[in-house]
Amino acid sequence: MFSPVYVKRVLGPCYDNWKRLYADDALAVHQAHLTCLVERGIVEATTGTSIARAIVAMESDFAWPQSIPEGVEDLYFVFERELGNRIGEESAAYLHTARSRNDMDTTVFRLALKRSLQTLAHEVLGAIRTAQRRAAGPGSEKLMVLYTHGQPANVSTLGHYLAAVAADLAEGLEELVASIGAVDRSTMGACAITGSGFDLDRVRVGALLGLDSIVTNTYQAISSSHWLTRPACALEAMLCDLVRVSADLFHKASCEVGLLDFPDALVQSSSIMPQKRNPVIIEHLRIQAGMAMGSCATIRELFRAAPYQDVNEVADAPVSAFIDSLGTAASAFALFAETVAGMEPNEARAREIALRFGVTTTELADEMVRRAGVGFRTAHRACAAYARSGGDLAELRASFQSIAGRELPFSDAQIAAILDPAHFVEVRRLAGGPAPEGMAVALAGLAESLDRSQSALQAMDEAGQRAKAELSAAWNALLDAGRDD
Amino acid sequence: MFSPVYVKRVLGPCYDNWKRLYADDALAVHQAHLTCLVERGIVEATTGTSIARAIVAMESDFAWPQSIPEGVEDLYFVFERELGNRIGEESAAYLHTARSRNDMDTTVFRLALKRSLQTLAHEVLGAIRTAQRRAAGPGSEKLMVLYTHGQPANVSTLGHYLAAVAADLAEGLEELVASIGAVDRSTMGACAITGSGFDLDRVRVGALLGLDSIVTNTYQAISSSHWLTRPACALEAMLCDLVRVSADLFHKASCEVGLLDFPDALVQSSSIMPQKRNPVIIEHLRIQAGMAMGSCATIRELFRAAPYQDVNEVADAPVSAFIDSLGTAASAFALFAETVAGMEPNEARAREIALRFGVTTTELADEMVRRAGVGFRTAHRACAAYARSGGDLAELRASFQSIAGRELPFSDAQIAAILDPAHFVEVRRLAGGPAPEGMAVALAGLAESLDRSQSALQAMDEAGQRAKAELSAAWNALLDAGRDD
Amino acid sequence: MFSPVYVKRVLGPCYDNWKRLYADDALAVHQAHLTCLVERGIVEATTGTSIARAIVAMESDFAWPQSIPEGVEDLYFVFERELGNRIGEESAAYLHTARSRNDMDTTVFRLALKRSLQTLAHEVLGAIRTAQRRAAGPGSEKLMVLYTHGQPANVSTLGHYLAAVAADLAEGLEELVASIGAVDRSTMGACAITGSGFDLDRVRVGALLGLDSIVTNTYQAISSSHWLTRPACALEAMLCDLVRVSADLFHKASCEVGLLDFPDALVQSSSIMPQKRNPVIIEHLRIQAGMAMGSCATIRELFRAAPYQDVNEVADAPVSAFIDSLGTAASAFALFAETVAGMEPNEARAREIALRFGVTTTELADEMVRRAGVGFRTAHRACAAYARSGGDLAELRASFQSIAGRELPFSDAQIAAILDPAHFVEVRRLAGGPAPEGMAVALAGLAESLDRSQSALQAMDEAGQRAKAELSAAWNALLDAGRDD
Amino acid sequence: MFSPVYVKRVLGPCYDNWKRLYADDALAVHQAHLTCLVERGIVEATTGTSIARAIVAMESDFAWPQSIPEGVEDLYFVFERELGNRIGEESAAYLHTARSRNDMDTTVFRLALKRSLQTLAHEVLGAIRTAQRRAAGPGSEKLMVLYTHGQPANVSTLGHYLAAVAADLAEGLEELVASIGAVDRSTMGACAITGSGFDLDRVRVGALLGLDSIVTNTYQAISSSHWLTRPACALEAMLCDLVRVSADLFHKASCEVGLLDFPDALVQSSSIMPQKRNPVIIEHLRIQAGMAMGSCATIRELFRAAPYQDVNEVADAPVSAFIDSLGTAASAFALFAETVAGMEPNEARAREIALRFGVTTTELADEMVRRAGVGFRTAHRACAAYARSGGDLAELRASFQSIAGRELPFSDAQIAAILDPAHFVEVRRLAGGPAPEGMAVALAGLAESLDRSQSALQAMDEAGQRAKAELSAAWNALLDAGRDD
Repeated sequence: MFSPVYVKRVLGPCYDNWKRLYADDALAVHQAHLTCLVERGIVEATTGTSIARAIVAMESDFAWPQSIPEGVEDLYFVFERELGNRIGEESAAYLHTARSRNDMDTTVFRLALKRSLQTLAHEVLGAIRTAQRRAAGPGSEKLMVLYTHGQPANVSTLGHYLAAVAADLAEGLEELVASIGAVDRSTMGACAITGSGFDLDRVRVGALLGLDSIVTNTYQAISSSHWLTRPACALEAMLCDLVRVSADLFHKASCEVGLLDFPDALVQSSSIMPQKRNPVIIEHLRIQAGMAMGSCATIRELFRAAPYQDVNEVADAPVSAFIDSLGTAASAFALFAETVAGMEPNEARAREIALRFGVTTTELADEMVRRAGVGFRTAHRACAAYARSGGDLAELRASFQSIAGRELPFSDAQIAAILDPAHFVEVRRLAGGPAPEGMAVALAGLAESLDRSQSALQAMDEAGQRAKAELSAAWNALLDAGRDD
Repeated sequence: MFSPVYVKRVLGPCYDNWKRLYADDALAVHQAHLTCLVERGIVEATTGTSIARAIVAMESDFAWPQSIPEGVEDLYFVFERELGNRIGEESAAYLHTARSRNDMDTTVFRLALKRSLQTLAHEVLGAIRTAQRRAAGPGSEKLMVLYTHGQPANVSTLGHYLAAVAADLAEGLEELVASIGAVDRSTMGACAITGSGFDLDRVRVGALLGLDSIVTNTYQAISSSHWLTRPACALEAMLCDLVRVSADLFHKASCEVGLLDFPDALVQSSSIMPQKRNPVIIEHLRIQAGMAMGSCATIRELFRAAPYQDVNEVADAPVSAFIDSLGTAASAFALFAETVAGMEPNEARAREIALRFGVTTTELADEMVRRAGVGFRTAHRACAAYARSGGDLAELRASFQSIAGRELPFSDAQIAAILDPAHFVEVRRLAGGPAPEGMAVALAGLAESLDRSQSALQAMDEAGQRAKAELSAAWNALLDAGRDD
Repeated sequence: MFSPVYVKRVLGPCYDNWKRLYADDALAVHQAHLTCLVERGIVEATTGTSIARAIVAMESDFAWPQSIPEGVEDLYFVFERELGNRIGEESAAYLHTARSRNDMDTTVFRLALKRSLQTLAHEVLGAIRTAQRRAAGPGSEKLMVLYTHGQPANVSTLGHYLAAVAADLAEGLEELVASIGAVDRSTMGACAITGSGFDLDRVRVGALLGLDSIVTNTYQAISSSHWLTRPACALEAMLCDLVRVSADLFHKASCEVGLLDFPDALVQSSSIMPQKRNPVIIEHLRIQAGMAMGSCATIRELFRAAPYQDVNEVADAPVSAFIDSLGTAASAFALFAETVAGMEPNEARAREIALRFGVTTTELADEMVRRAGVGFRTAHRACAAYARSGGDLAELRASFQSIAGRELPFSDAQIAAILDPAHFVEVRRLAGGPAPEGMAVALAGLAESLDRSQSALQAMDEAGQRAKAELSAAWNALLDAGRDD
Repeated sequence: MFSPVYVKRVLGPCYDNWKRLYADDALAVHQAHLTCLVERGIVEATTGTSIARAIVAMESDFAWPQSIPEGVEDLYFVFERELGNRIGEESAAYLHTARSRNDMDTTVFRLALKRSLQTLAHEVLGAIRTAQRRAAGPGSEKLMVLYTHGQPANVSTLGHYLAAVAADLAEGLEELVASIGAVDRSTMGACAITGSGFDLDRVRVGALLGLDSIVTNTYQAISSSHWLTRPACALEAMLCDLVRVSADLFHKASCEVGLLDFPDALVQSSSIMPQKRNPVIIEHLRIQAGMAMGSCATIRELFRAAPYQDVNEVADAPVSAFIDSLGTAASAFALFAETVAGMEPNEARAREIALRFGVTTTELADEMVRRAGVGFRTAHRACAAYARSGGDLAELRASFQSIAGRELPFSDAQIAAILDPAHFVEVRRLAGGPAPEGMAVALAGLAESLDRSQSALQAMDEAGQRAKAELSAAWNALLDAGRDD
């Protein structure tokens, strides 16, 4: 009999996790394992069919006890006991031939985690697609001022800015999708840690479960943390990008900067300050991303204290917490998408900031180099004097004269044209720059990256469907084979 | 004039970092950028050649000042000033046409970090190869007991165990090598954040620098953290595996367990306890891995507080600290290799533990299922009674009789043969199991993984050599072109 | 109207948190604030009484809507609206005079967190008391071998070992209890961030709520993270000690070492390995401690990205997650107590290890220094030779002779007495050593530390009771005052 | 002979650390230990004196070898060997009676770390004093706008803001100073882990070393991490506050917000953007704080993987890295002080923001409640309409009329007076508010907190001086005692 404290603190919560999250996947593992045991002649067909039929019967007329029954370690033993009640303990136990809870459990956890990660990845893709659409769609050419070190630096466009954000997130998504590959591997047949003397077909069991490959080394299969830590790290990295983006949006949305407007639907008021309009959605995005980062870090750090053995760090408590936290991550991405979809660049304000803070003088300096026959340092100095003067053309001319030793060869109208914020963007046609020619290259790269992720996710979904059908056919064959007896 | 505190705390250390780590890469960037400025007609050939010659002259007769000169921000301005002294400020400044410190610096940092990561990856590969050799080489078949949840679980071999460790590390190495891809990208042409109105060839500049591609979006090029955080996370994950392995080795090497012996060359004594022989190399492996993990985490966490803009988190202070910490990581891997190369499995002790703690009764239970016509649960129960009795055959027979209702159909000799530790391994022939047949599959997968990493590293090295030659040729052409004048 | 995404992802979960965790504390804040508004003449008594009566009525006949009503930001607005429905919006709003949600909310969160931390601290105290009892109680003198660098180092006792563990935890508990002081402060009257022009009594409001003091600076009151981060860090540190202890117990409980036996009630079996008896409670202790550490770290790290302003990091989402995670921490401590209460030192095994690995030769060396007239290095060398020989007395004598140049002046019986493990303990009477004389000092210090924590917790409980009574009296007076009208 | 890899990666760096950081403290430990060995009659006076004289001689004529000599574990063995060369190995070894490297080393590390923490704490105190001076000194009354959720919320003053920052940091400093108490304890006499059979006086040895107390339990003395982790956590928390403050300053210093001006001495330019004036000191403050946080976290996390035993995590590699990183922390605080000392609030801009964004309408609403006989919700609504109108008085009057059903009883001049930013501050006289009356309370609390830390640090310094004198006297007595022979 287990200690009541142990039941309350360990076995009970474990049983609850299994009921809530893993019972269906465990069933699939039973089906695939039993199918193969019979296919390989390890368990006789009649025994196999009798077990299979009992399992099918249980699906319709058995309910898991509310809480863990006394003296039982876990949900699997409840299952095996019930199976034993129906067809005899001896027969029931054949299901567990050439299998341990070690390989069974990690495979079940991998199935559940894989599904949750697939769902999350689709949601993340959707959120980035929202940013991509705004970066490529109508209004993407609207002017924005972008910053370096917190100060206005260059004029650019909404599209250029969002395409950068989306590109960094798209890189992260490729990592996240690739990390599912570390989950997508069967450990069946690893048994405790050294496999079995029974002649299983490890690849076949994995394939029936829709898993892409097997973890070959049986000790690694049970001991490795990668199927948890790799997705956790990939997700954590993306969330950190979200936090960074939120801090940048926060500044642009502050009322003194005013480069981004928010609709009322995303703004909260103050209970005491009548004037307040807080786009706190950006804060909540930061917080939810931060909390989900914390969950990822929890997973990551757990393994620092876990010897390279079979440990319960790869068991239900951490796995369930991780799966649950994916919902927080998805929520953060939903807030990101809502923010990006709802915010509106204030182009007039962008022009105002650009001109007031001399943002476009970089271009003026460049034009001096190109067309006024001076080097960059001379041009830079004359423009700095102009910026410091608050935009005084006389000062500009005087300064140029004194530094370059000749007259500035631009008319006032030419200077105005050069300093025009739209012109600043227009000439930045280099690959990846804000002009349409530059954006085309960047957007193409972004689309390719997102399409790669989308294709990979679709392929995963389709492979899953095919495997489900194959398992179902094999299982029905097993049930029917019995029917002929 | 900068504040003395600012010079002491920021500009001075920055200048020192640049002198120590980045001056050579900055030179390469000057060469590649100038070459392309001339190639694209942005800077006239004569000006280009004059700059190039002055740079070459500086290589032989200019030394960086000991500490940062007064009133100067950084090493680049020292360089540009010196260049100006030689060919006139106006001419010198043409070098900085269509360039900002933003794109120049991140490209320089990427070059330096890439090189350091390549070196580290080669060292890591070497360490894993050491484990691979022991896993595949003579003595790899020596018996070990492996553990689950800290208790002896199965008999296996040194090779099986080390192959698992190596396979997990090899997966990590593939990630680490792939992460260099995030570093291996040029940001030249991004200028401040929006590129330039000058008609640069961004791809050509990157290629001359030996970088694999460009970061297309110019805002992303300056703002992204991925070139720092991806390698940091990949490395951190590998180091965590090392920590896990060290904890497992620690247990196996403890004198009561005694499965691993250590040569005197790796053992320290006690200044007070005459009997002590501490294989503290395992502890130092854990500590150095842990300290390097801390450095990776520092990089990772820095960005949580950095808005998605151009920030100094991608500048010399964090980059230099990260580069320096790669040495600690390399040291941890060297200790791992030394440990793995030096330790010797104590096979006699493995047999002793196996028999004393009933480790091989799993196989006895399996044989009962296979050959005694009972289900797994019956077999399991009889064997548990046997294990509890401390290996009393009479108890085994009695227990089997009472549970199965018939006599155990094995002779004492048969039982002994079944329980033999070597037999336990021999029958575990499944893919990835410890028997030679199983190991062959696992070792093949391991070799493929390591070969992939090795090929990728070699390809990187070769591409680097080719680019170096190309840049050298272009640079010489520029110098010579001038010579015709 | 708020965006549906925002309601689903932010406002809805916030409302649910408030209903579940904070509604009662919000009521107390309403009571204390209103009482003081009337006491200071800011709100007229009749208005105050009418509000108070409506609040009392709501307690009996109002239920929070199942989910957040449309167009409402949070639970407070639901409350204020309902109050308005009863006594008119105009009257109802007087309750919010000189108050903001900022100061109200953080005070509510502090009340809830303080209560949860008090509960946790009592549970932690109980767990450490369990260790203290075993360290001081019957059986505490049982011999154990203790380790340095994973190797057997000295003979000691169960009591000495557990007293060390308990002393480190007791230090941690003092920190944890002290950290409640950072929570135990009222922010009422800080309003948004600069206080109010109304003449409140900030100290009085805090006292009525049972809070120990106020956060004086009103900006700090709203912006500080310390009331969250200090307890999180204090708890995280304790949990890390638990993780360290679990790793040490893990080794001592492994069957080859065998220094600690576990009762069946704390041991799990294997579904495949008949011989396995896993005291996995130690692992679950490690995991739960690690998961709770992760939650503490999440809180800690959140603030790295939060400007020093009023931010939602100090609001319901993180606070609720932190409160919930205290349950995980409590569970880890419960497992620790159960482990410590249930484990039994195996004294015979301790003696065996001590003699087999020469653990007590340190004492033999000391005795040589004391009574054989040699220096420590000579003694150490002779004893090392003896240990290496596996305990061969002849070797000892020969070695001593050859190093010291004279005969070892101890008889075989004397040597045996010196090497006796119990003797080793007996002579270690220094303060803090394992002999009863040494233990008395250590246990006294431990008791004082735990008593300090206990007294502080009791004082907190009693102050809370007194404040509750005072608030209740003031509130009733307000209700009654109205009754006279 | 140790393995070359082990020497290069472990023993060599360890030896270098000891030479650089610990040799002097080791000497003090030798002096204190030897003094007490003689005082307690454990070592004869003549032997003691001879050892003491040899040590003194070594101080003048012995130099540590450049690198670790072959076959030696560490600096201590080099020292003991040299001592042996002078007075015979036998005599020399008496110094190590009743001592192990375990207790000796941790005491040495504690001495070195304590000194480094004292230095840091003084520097941190100085930095906070800078903020305190500006918060209390001339110009502290200058108006600032303070923010909630990134939006302008209330008018306040430079003093109020800096006093809040300083108060949070002062709380952190009290923790940091208190944490030195965990370092300030001697472990001498703990020997390996169980103390000694020799009759030492553990308290006396500690006192001679200037340590405040002893770690009583000898196992805890060697195994505890608290002397490293507590200061690391206390410092990490302060640094996180710095990061938060830097983010807030960053926003206030951005040119669109413009509430803080920076002198040229703290501003960097752009090499490409002529208009840029970046107060990047704020960024470097954030980065250096973040990097030092990483070092603290490294220490903290190391112990997660270290069993509760004597481990090398409490040895030179982590301790030295931690000591070195205190310099980075000090640098971050120096940048904070320089920032706070150099920045100037732009009061005109504060007024402008206040009026433009309706920041003072909170006060108008309050005045309506006080003097216009309406409830808070009515007042809030009328003011919100006014704020939305961009400050149109007619709209205010109309809105008040329509909501309250009567005329707003304030003249235009009265409204202007109410809305005046200075008035907003003036009336906020509550404890901790920005008016002088409120500030007096907050500043008094701040001064008390800083004075507590300062007194504690001074007491520590003085105790250190006294102990140094006492040890010197005892040591000289030992040398002289010898002289009488």
